[in-house]
Amino acid sequence: MNAKTKLLTLPTPPYFAVIFTSKMSLDDVGYGKMAQRMEELAAEQKGFLGVESARGADGVGITVSYWRDEAAIRAWKGQSEHRSAQAKGQAHWYEDYSVRVAKVERAYEN
Amino acid sequence: MNAKTKLLTLPTPPYFAVIFTSKMSLDDVGYGKMAQRMEELAAEQKGFLGVESARGADGVGITVSYWRDEAAIRAWKGQSEHRSAQAKGQAHWYEDYSVRVAKVERAYEN
Repeated sequence: MNAKTKLLTLPTPPYFAVIFTSKMSLDDVGYGKMAQRMEELAAEQKGFLGVESARGADGVGITVSYWRDEAAIRAWKGQSEHRSAQAKGQAHWYEDYSVRVAKVERAYEN
Repeated sequence: MNAKTKLLTLPTPPYFAVIFTSKMSLDDVGYGKMAQRMEELAAEQKGFLGVESARGADGVGITVSYWRDEAAIRAWKGQSEHRSAQAKGQAHWYEDYSVRVAKVERAYEN
């Protein structure tokens, strides 16, 4: 296993999760670069705890980012470069998507 | 888009999510059949709302199942055929995994 695919270790709950599910459209020009940039940018935000992401061959992807509190999530949603990426995603890259904000109450790891 | 890859439509929050993240081991014999069976079995449980799943080429997968309440999650965790699948997953299929139980407080869809 390389470092990139090691699963996250997170602090003891409670903390918050943003579950972002998306179905890619056929137009994926520029998507990979943006997705990588958004992971880097998220990691610089206050209250960011980690992110995990998977996308299958059917184009359905799930990204879960973890945050210290709701204020951190709101700040990230409104971050200017992220807002621009959200708009491009809605206009071009995603055929469908949903965002769910959840409070993680308990967790167990292998 | 076919029906299988349409994203979930869920009721208005609150409801609960089980975020299951895993890294596959090299031993995946029988895994696909089990995973499909578990999705079918979950869908038969009381309080089940839906499930979404993605696994990338790096072997990291995220499955998020949604439930009406915590009691439904506890019942599913203890369901006998599911317990057997959990044991096989820990022994053979997963190099690493984590489970996080979260209360979805708000959601927005495309």
